[in-house]
Amino acid sequence: MRVADLTEEELLARIVPELPGGDATLVGPGDDAAVLAAPDGRYVVTTDVLVEDRHFRRAWSSGADLGRRAAVQNLADVAAMGAVPTALVVTLAVPGDLAVDWVVGIARGLAHVCAPLGVGVVGGDLSGAPVVVVGVTAHGDLAGRAPVLRSGARPGDVVAHAGVLGRSAAGLALLDGSVADPDPALVAAYLRPSSPLAAGPAAARAGATAMLDVSDGLLRDAGRLARASGVRVDLAASALGGSVDELREAARRVGADPWAWVLGGGEDHGLLAAFPADVPLPDPFRAIGTVVPADPTAADVTVDGAPARVGPGWDHFAGGQPRR
Amino acid sequence: MRVADLTEEELLARIVPELPGGDATLVGPGDDAAVLAAPDGRYVVTTDVLVEDRHFRRAWSSGADLGRRAAVQNLADVAAMGAVPTALVVTLAVPGDLAVDWVVGIARGLAHVCAPLGVGVVGGDLSGAPVVVVGVTAHGDLAGRAPVLRSGARPGDVVAHAGVLGRSAAGLALLDGSVADPDPALVAAYLRPSSPLAAGPAAARAGATAMLDVSDGLLRDAGRLARASGVRVDLAASALGGSVDELREAARRVGADPWAWVLGGGEDHGLLAAFPADVPLPDPFRAIGTVVPADPTAADVTVDGAPARVGPGWDHFAGGQPRR
Repeated sequence: MRVADLTEEELLARIVPELPGGDATLVGPGDDAAVLAAPDGRYVVTTDVLVEDRHFRRAWSSGADLGRRAAVQNLADVAAMGAVPTALVVTLAVPGDLAVDWVVGIARGLAHVCAPLGVGVVGGDLSGAPVVVVGVTAHGDLAGRAPVLRSGARPGDVVAHAGVLGRSAAGLALLDGSVADPDPALVAAYLRPSSPLAAGPAAARAGATAMLDVSDGLLRDAGRLARASGVRVDLAASALGGSVDELREAARRVGADPWAWVLGGGEDHGLLAAFPADVPLPDPFRAIGTVVPADPTAADVTVDGAPARVGPGWDHFAGGQPRR
Repeated sequence: MRVADLTEEELLARIVPELPGGDATLVGPGDDAAVLAAPDGRYVVTTDVLVEDRHFRRAWSSGADLGRRAAVQNLADVAAMGAVPTALVVTLAVPGDLAVDWVVGIARGLAHVCAPLGVGVVGGDLSGAPVVVVGVTAHGDLAGRAPVLRSGARPGDVVAHAGVLGRSAAGLALLDGSVADPDPALVAAYLRPSSPLAAGPAAARAGATAMLDVSDGLLRDAGRLARASGVRVDLAASALGGSVDELREAARRVGADPWAWVLGGGEDHGLLAAFPADVPLPDPFRAIGTVVPADPTAADVTVDGAPARVGPGWDHFAGGQPRR
């Protein structure tokens, strides 16, 4: 059955029962707006959009994969503020010939990530479109803590990372290269990324001075933290070697440089944070560098004090070439 | 200059300065998430998506028109809960060959609506896409009042409406029919709808028992209120005659029935509410009907006690035919 075979209300009637209610939900789907609790008098909000043939391909991703990915990337942004995710709203624009099961799969993927966390999917909007476009807006609760911004890192801080590095890029490269029997864990890291969401509030409690979600590659996102804070981030190659070693076999199969994936690959959705040097790092953060004073003659991010050897991340528009 | 001529950061650098800060904004754009104030410990949230060639055409709408429309339709949903709008986040997916000025126009259109209200545009996401897709998530503050749901109307209540009826549909029909010298006020009602946003909180203060935004046509949205409340809505034709008369000339020019626009036309973004009979209606609400007990043998919505003579509203998917 295709989307075009149902009215909008019939399609909604299949989607809404799949959506988790959420612990902070006072009024859920079905009215003009949802009502959410904000017990500390503030809330965080972030939004992201995933577009077919830019961010995903239907040949590779199921609807459930897409729903999981859309949820994770937004919840990671909430966690990167030090907040606990509470609720999502979702816009879904799909072609009329898309299978209804595929759309219901998106809802199930969202629920797979959100339900165990008590995160509600509390509203949305459906439309037709020539390609699948999923927009998610995520909300979170700071639980009385100050938000952890990108701008608070100070020289002497330890730079630490929680999550994986380069695995999503490796999975994408294996799919893109049509490699036979690709490492299923790497393919899954691309199709269904996970993020150490609890590490965000843990970092805030531990006194993190700056934090962000690594969505566009370690170098590029570290550069954002460095510029926002007016500092330089110096990464330690030795601390990244384990991530690189894990990807050597996959890199060999597609003729890639595993360092490029670890330093430049996007969409891993780990958390990068700076901590005062005397703070024990909360699990699962591990130190990967240090914050040093900004130097106008050096890059914002260095590796062992020297410029890094791969370009930073990727861009949606440059040259008009989609990279995803 | 086209979008593809800029990097994502360069495009953002042109958009972000156009966006209003907002009275409730604690942390604005530039971090992983924004932080908003929720002084009463709750907030309302709603989301909508506008897709090129479904909801608008670039041949008719400027970027600024689209931004205004995207803001208004979401703020109307906030107002329909009885809440005061506080902030938006926006996703924007656009083709690489779109003019940068057109995208900046969207930001200016959002700002045109939001800035005078103290509503911030506090975050967003950019992507490429084959057509323009704008997703807006709007937030609002209930200021200590209970949200006004669709489900509270009781027999004996007065049904009242604030805003215009059928004018957006008339404007669309004039454009669609390529009528020479179309009434500019009607065309503007379609391209740049306005909503009586202050009427939402005013209705809540006055004791409205149910309310919703009229986005899919009066009959269809009144039917939603009726079903959610377990009642029937009986509209008074005499109270709608003024709206019909205003549209007679436009209807004559395109061979349409002005009653179809008033009863079935979407996207006017007025507010439909039920009030106890003894409550003075707050400005600019006017009575257009009454709430009567549900009758399993009658329609959810009647006009002068009889079934209405046009079909209800429009649907995004039915038959696969876009109606916008």
